[in-house]
Amino acid sequence: MKKYVYFFGGGTADGDGTMKGLLGGKGAGLAEMSRTGVPVPPGFTITTEVCNLYFENDGKVPEEVDQQMKEALAKLEEMMGQKLGDPENPLLVSVRSGAKFSMPGMMDTVLNLGLNDVSVEGLAKRAQNPRFAYDCYRRFIQMFGNVVMGIDKDKFERVFEAQKKKAKAKFDTDLTAEDLKKVVAEFKKVYKKETGQEFPQDPMKQLEMARNAVFQSWWNPRAAHYRKMNKIDDHLGTAVNVQTMVFGNLGDNSATGVGFTRNPATGEKEFYGEYLINAQGEDVVAGIRTPKPISMLKEEMPEVYEQLKEITTKLEQHYRDVQDFEFTIQDGKLYMLQTRNGKRTGPAAVKIAVDMVHEGLISKEKAVMRVEPNQLDQLLHPLIEPKSRKTLKLLAKGLPASPGAAVGRIVFTADDAVEAAKKGPVILVRKETVPDDIHGMEVAKGILTSRGGMTSHAAVVARGMGTPCVAGAEDIKVDERGRKMTVAGVTLKEGDWISLDGTTGEVFAGQATTVEPDPTSGILAEFMGWADEFRGDFGVRANADVPRDAKVARKFGAQGIGLCRTEHMFFGEGRIEHMQAMILADNEKDRKKALRKLLPMQRRDFAGLFKAMDGYPVIIRTLDPPLHEFVPKREEIMVDLAKLPHATIKEKRAMSERYGVPVRELKKYLPNLLRRVEELHEFNPMLGHRGCRLGITYPEITEMQARAIAQAAIQVAKKGIKVIPEVMIPLIGSAEELADQKAIVKRVFEEELEKAGVEVKYMIGTMIEIPRAALTADKVAREADFFSFGTNDLTQTCMGLSRDDYVKFSKEYEEKKIFKADPFQVLDQEGVGQLVEMGVKRGRSTRPELEVGICGEHGGEPSSVAFCYRVGMDYVSCSPYRVPIARLAAAQAAIASKQKEAAAETMRTA
Amino acid sequence: MKKYVYFFGGGTADGDGTMKGLLGGKGAGLAEMSRTGVPVPPGFTITTEVCNLYFENDGKVPEEVDQQMKEALAKLEEMMGQKLGDPENPLLVSVRSGAKFSMPGMMDTVLNLGLNDVSVEGLAKRAQNPRFAYDCYRRFIQMFGNVVMGIDKDKFERVFEAQKKKAKAKFDTDLTAEDLKKVVAEFKKVYKKETGQEFPQDPMKQLEMARNAVFQSWWNPRAAHYRKMNKIDDHLGTAVNVQTMVFGNLGDNSATGVGFTRNPATGEKEFYGEYLINAQGEDVVAGIRTPKPISMLKEEMPEVYEQLKEITTKLEQHYRDVQDFEFTIQDGKLYMLQTRNGKRTGPAAVKIAVDMVHEGLISKEKAVMRVEPNQLDQLLHPLIEPKSRKTLKLLAKGLPASPGAAVGRIVFTADDAVEAAKKGPVILVRKETVPDDIHGMEVAKGILTSRGGMTSHAAVVARGMGTPCVAGAEDIKVDERGRKMTVAGVTLKEGDWISLDGTTGEVFAGQATTVEPDPTSGILAEFMGWADEFRGDFGVRANADVPRDAKVARKFGAQGIGLCRTEHMFFGEGRIEHMQAMILADNEKDRKKALRKLLPMQRRDFAGLFKAMDGYPVIIRTLDPPLHEFVPKREEIMVDLAKLPHATIKEKRAMSERYGVPVRELKKYLPNLLRRVEELHEFNPMLGHRGCRLGITYPEITEMQARAIAQAAIQVAKKGIKVIPEVMIPLIGSAEELADQKAIVKRVFEEELEKAGVEVKYMIGTMIEIPRAALTADKVAREADFFSFGTNDLTQTCMGLSRDDYVKFSKEYEEKKIFKADPFQVLDQEGVGQLVEMGVKRGRSTRPELEVGICGEHGGEPSSVAFCYRVGMDYVSCSPYRVPIARLAAAQAAIASKQKEAAAETMRTA
Repeated sequence: MKKYVYFFGGGTADGDGTMKGLLGGKGAGLAEMSRTGVPVPPGFTITTEVCNLYFENDGKVPEEVDQQMKEALAKLEEMMGQKLGDPENPLLVSVRSGAKFSMPGMMDTVLNLGLNDVSVEGLAKRAQNPRFAYDCYRRFIQMFGNVVMGIDKDKFERVFEAQKKKAKAKFDTDLTAEDLKKVVAEFKKVYKKETGQEFPQDPMKQLEMARNAVFQSWWNPRAAHYRKMNKIDDHLGTAVNVQTMVFGNLGDNSATGVGFTRNPATGEKEFYGEYLINAQGEDVVAGIRTPKPISMLKEEMPEVYEQLKEITTKLEQHYRDVQDFEFTIQDGKLYMLQTRNGKRTGPAAVKIAVDMVHEGLISKEKAVMRVEPNQLDQLLHPLIEPKSRKTLKLLAKGLPASPGAAVGRIVFTADDAVEAAKKGPVILVRKETVPDDIHGMEVAKGILTSRGGMTSHAAVVARGMGTPCVAGAEDIKVDERGRKMTVAGVTLKEGDWISLDGTTGEVFAGQATTVEPDPTSGILAEFMGWADEFRGDFGVRANADVPRDAKVARKFGAQGIGLCRTEHMFFGEGRIEHMQAMILADNEKDRKKALRKLLPMQRRDFAGLFKAMDGYPVIIRTLDPPLHEFVPKREEIMVDLAKLPHATIKEKRAMSERYGVPVRELKKYLPNLLRRVEELHEFNPMLGHRGCRLGITYPEITEMQARAIAQAAIQVAKKGIKVIPEVMIPLIGSAEELADQKAIVKRVFEEELEKAGVEVKYMIGTMIEIPRAALTADKVAREADFFSFGTNDLTQTCMGLSRDDYVKFSKEYEEKKIFKADPFQVLDQEGVGQLVEMGVKRGRSTRPELEVGICGEHGGEPSSVAFCYRVGMDYVSCSPYRVPIARLAAAQAAIASKQKEAAAETMRTA
Repeated sequence: MKKYVYFFGGGTADGDGTMKGLLGGKGAGLAEMSRTGVPVPPGFTITTEVCNLYFENDGKVPEEVDQQMKEALAKLEEMMGQKLGDPENPLLVSVRSGAKFSMPGMMDTVLNLGLNDVSVEGLAKRAQNPRFAYDCYRRFIQMFGNVVMGIDKDKFERVFEAQKKKAKAKFDTDLTAEDLKKVVAEFKKVYKKETGQEFPQDPMKQLEMARNAVFQSWWNPRAAHYRKMNKIDDHLGTAVNVQTMVFGNLGDNSATGVGFTRNPATGEKEFYGEYLINAQGEDVVAGIRTPKPISMLKEEMPEVYEQLKEITTKLEQHYRDVQDFEFTIQDGKLYMLQTRNGKRTGPAAVKIAVDMVHEGLISKEKAVMRVEPNQLDQLLHPLIEPKSRKTLKLLAKGLPASPGAAVGRIVFTADDAVEAAKKGPVILVRKETVPDDIHGMEVAKGILTSRGGMTSHAAVVARGMGTPCVAGAEDIKVDERGRKMTVAGVTLKEGDWISLDGTTGEVFAGQATTVEPDPTSGILAEFMGWADEFRGDFGVRANADVPRDAKVARKFGAQGIGLCRTEHMFFGEGRIEHMQAMILADNEKDRKKALRKLLPMQRRDFAGLFKAMDGYPVIIRTLDPPLHEFVPKREEIMVDLAKLPHATIKEKRAMSERYGVPVRELKKYLPNLLRRVEELHEFNPMLGHRGCRLGITYPEITEMQARAIAQAAIQVAKKGIKVIPEVMIPLIGSAEELADQKAIVKRVFEEELEKAGVEVKYMIGTMIEIPRAALTADKVAREADFFSFGTNDLTQTCMGLSRDDYVKFSKEYEEKKIFKADPFQVLDQEGVGQLVEMGVKRGRSTRPELEVGICGEHGGEPSSVAFCYRVGMDYVSCSPYRVPIARLAAAQAAIASKQKEAAAETMRTA
């Protein structure tokens, strides 16, 4: 018979820590802890397979599952000497979700299960504490009612608050056992009213319903959304952990807490955590009361503290990674409820990885593999500039829950955040966040809460997303309904600017100036050094159009420029008018005249790039966009023409300025302009007269650009700087096109080099950004010194999908899972990737020394970088700020490939 | 030593008829004729290889060529007993081009070479005819001056006309020897003035210069243009034929002529040709004098006539194809100058092929291979309707030079034709056409000349292009400069309508009504029957949107509908308003309401198609174009909005009508409309929110269409008609998209079929028109019953090339040979073809029974049809009028594949 239920407890377990897929992370962790002698409340795990069977069979589970659950429960009852629902000595259990990958707070939990009108009295007697027993019972009814039956929490909260008022209680703990009995009676009425049924008294029925509710919660909207955000497979399912309840709320000798073996925000090696005396676990996580730092436990319960420290240190050694643990102290006795590898911020991930290498815990290789490349983004985030810090008003100080500086306008609800974020940066300010706020947190530049600790929902989620967060800034009074917050005598309203420093916990009024971090020193530099060792000679370049960006790119470790878009230079002041003159010219002579004016400007730009990239290659792409992008829009001209006969003098003057033509000439000028702009109009500009097609119809443009590049290269080379120009022709679809443009570039370079008497090695190559170029890459490569995959356009053409127009239906496409991810962010390896791989292979088949890279935005996305490494590219090129991410992703790809080879080798020799 | 020069004559030859590539068509023909004992003036052929060497070596040829030419010349001189340049008995030769494929009139020829101031006297003595000798000499100087040295013909013509005037001569033949001597003297002066050199007296020098000029003429613009039009490879080069001159202008016992063994316009088996007494060959071809029909030769020179008939009949038997021959009668002795397979019209090609099968000359297989599929187009051309023929004024009757009816406005120059053809159909009217008119002939619907015969330039070229042509309508006075023509007392001006019947030679004033031919009877039906036998079960379907087109398609032999574009149905009156209401709806409810109104209309349309296609499959594609195609254009609304404040009542009323909204509501309506239209606006509609993407975001549209199809199928099936509906989802890029849409269609069909209690087999499949679909075809096929390659869009996406925008630079692209042909007409097998082949293979790899076809416009283009056959498609689908062309192309592909297999089999067993 198939095993669906795994027992753990009493120093043994059916499962172990490797079985995360089957038992979930929590279940596997409990089994592993139990095996290693860690004091864990015993219980059993119902596997993730059962979850899938549950959904496949319309909410039913195989009979064997029920059978195995009964057996496990009997074993548990025997071990604990208690019985579920027993009137004398009742066993209480928790029922928790636990998937393969941690999804904090996303799914449901039921605590104190096993209580009913009879067993509650047994519990009261055993604990000699009726207040505690009825507190458990009222919590159970509320949780069961909410989680299992979907009753709004508020329905219960209102009853509870009313009772508190009636009893004149300030805190929950002020309520007596009698008060709580009344609450229980009222809660049962609420349950009956909302569900039409009595609250179930049969504990086995309770257990079955709770188990199913946990399964069901796999598909609640926030869990589904979280999986989508985190790319977790919907088919994994969740396990259910049924575990003996231990009580942190059994009095002042009881407590509950969570912690990390190292600081998850900074990575400092410090015992780190929080606890609440006389409370249950969810009180800590939910952030309702601000918990105490774990250092205080050392004073309050020194023995327990030492035991906890010893156990968790052992666990870190065991797992060789930071542990995120939960514990409960019941009447002075420590129980570990959970341990798992701790989530951490980017800076913490790097620091912990580097420290653990120095401590001899892990290898450099492992350290490099430990940091998610995208997490580096947080280390590259701007910081608040020291000067700006002094000039701004410090409003409050909270917990430094997630590092980095964030500047934005205040919003008070998740929905408002989504709306306002369309217009500019927002900071989400909440008393505390709840899982339902996730969509607002996602769009916010920073998160600020007035309640909750370092492990509160806001803090955990913000760190996971790499969003700066200040949590538990208790001085701030947040009025979410009134859309305002008050602190230090200042009231800030929705839309006001504030600045957060998530690294220090400071909150400032106004807009801070931020500064860039320095990636060339300290722990990050050490870490990146290791990454670069593993990366070997797989290069990382940057896309940069101007010398300023090129310098940033160098600082971030770029080994050249993979794409300089020359057209961006044409939009500058003093340039666009020559560009327009060139475009609107009726003949080659006028066109050439305008081009002659543009040449020295282009030469200057290129010279700057060559200087910044001393010794590294610089790929310059010839003009790419369709010409109509440089002239006024046709519909604007049409509307102005329609308005002109009745326009006021003021309107006419505005037009005159817009077109750079005297008022009296507008009448003649506009129709002429419209005619030329109409000629340039395209139905599908993406597929139109652009890229090499421009150079083929107007060879003089290619010639001017080639000359500017050649002259700039010569000029800089003469100064003793090493120049490696690579001229790239865009939008090539056939070898013939490239041959045509190459002939022009080559001729101009040879002319200029001969005239200057200088030797400069140069390359002429092409973008591969049209399917046909990839399909005929063997022929194209005969004309090309290098290929650079333009995966933005290649994605558009391969998928027949305009990036600009995709936004209109992207939501449906990603929700319906038609696309697993936005193909413009994550390279579609299944489709577009085939063309890339084909292009590389076929290109090299006729020119083995072909240099191959990527310059689409995917060049900075980790999974895409790994793909580029696997298909044998020489380098990736991305935006300057993503260069370190690409360097790390490439290093990881190199290590993974080495490991794969090693595994294959082992297979062969075995 | 490599052989560059091939001798022929005296009953033998170095080469033979198979060596067209090396010797050119003419050279190979002369060799073959010489071998078979046909009386051919002896000579030698300089191979096409020399032409290529000439261009590769900057206009020089290897020394061996000169050496071999000298040897061949010596042999020739010995055979003829004459010597080049001999003062007593000079040998004269012609120097003619001759490429592998016939390019009539495109390249240059020099006649009478070998004459100089001395040898002309020798010729005069030998011929006892000084007039003849000087006539030859003046012709030679003019031709040499024009062809070799590029002197404008007019320069000579003016001198000649002046001399005629001076001598009061009416015809050229009125000039005496003395007159011609003067002409020669004047011609030499022209030569000196234009070239700065004396006219070359050394015959070897003349020969070398003439040879090079012929090579050079390979690249003259009209030859290059002709090759482009006819897809002849530029690298083939031309051979040069040096051949003993024989003279048709030696007196009234001499003549020159051309002919066909069968009528090349109708295919009738009749001896067919024309000749001129006392003339040289070019006089016939140039159409300067209207020649006599060959039947008159029987009376004028009965023996020669019989000999000619015997020889040409033998040649037809020898080549088993219609022969197009040239002959010269010198002093009563017949010489054959050339024979080749004759060009013929489509109707003639079919008739000749069928007749030759009946005569036992060729097999059915060969007959099917003999007709160019595109030629069938001429048989499917409209004819002038009999009634219309009676009501129109018959202006003149000329020669029926190329069949079919043509209706258009008159133009008088090739340049005017190009301009006017942009606005509507034109008829090019010329005295006679010359090779420089080719660009105008290409765009004209019909060609009318007042001079020239059935083999005049106009007639030959028009037949080649399949353009109706009436030639030599001598009653018509054409005033090209005055842009008018006069006939039968009527003067017609540029822009007036005329109608031509190229089948009868009639010219009518005004616009004729035309009728469709009937392809289901007669000789065409017999021929197509054979083609269909060879085609086997490879299907041909038609693209048809409405029952009317479906009926035409059936008549032309379509075996089903390969593509019905449902959106075309939405543009009809009483429909577009519901479509717009659907699109502009803010919610699903309103959208569904509008869709409910469209459903019965769609059902009616589909029922009509199913009826027309009884027993054959009908593929119906769900909605494809982006929704903004159905609403007013945004720039129109913008302009109207700009105008509205100052609009006159009349303008406002016009707007009110345009938008279907009362005048007073315009102010409110237009901004709202603009808002919605702006929402629909797309940057690249081709790559935007269309195809299956619409169905995925608005499932109710797919549902409505599926329901209309299902209900129509049920309704027609109930009448006992066999219905085979195939629902096709457009723009699929991934299996997930198809699965989504398929689920809707399947559910609706099952619902409707169950409700009706009827069994109808249906298929659900997809267009493959995005590269990604082809790349992932193995996965897509798991969801698809059939694939239909939409090669229009596949070409656009694979090449990153918008069809609408391509026109802006197509000229440069095709002239620069970047594209060999317009990729939207001829499938780009090298690039797009790879995706098609991949799609077929991968699709069948997971679903072997997958039905595969093509519905792009390439489905009616012969080379593309052959490609579809080769890659294993089940059928092609094309516009109804191209169905016979596709049927023939498929038959030819089947035969070619059978022949290839047979050849491979022979190789294996050998």
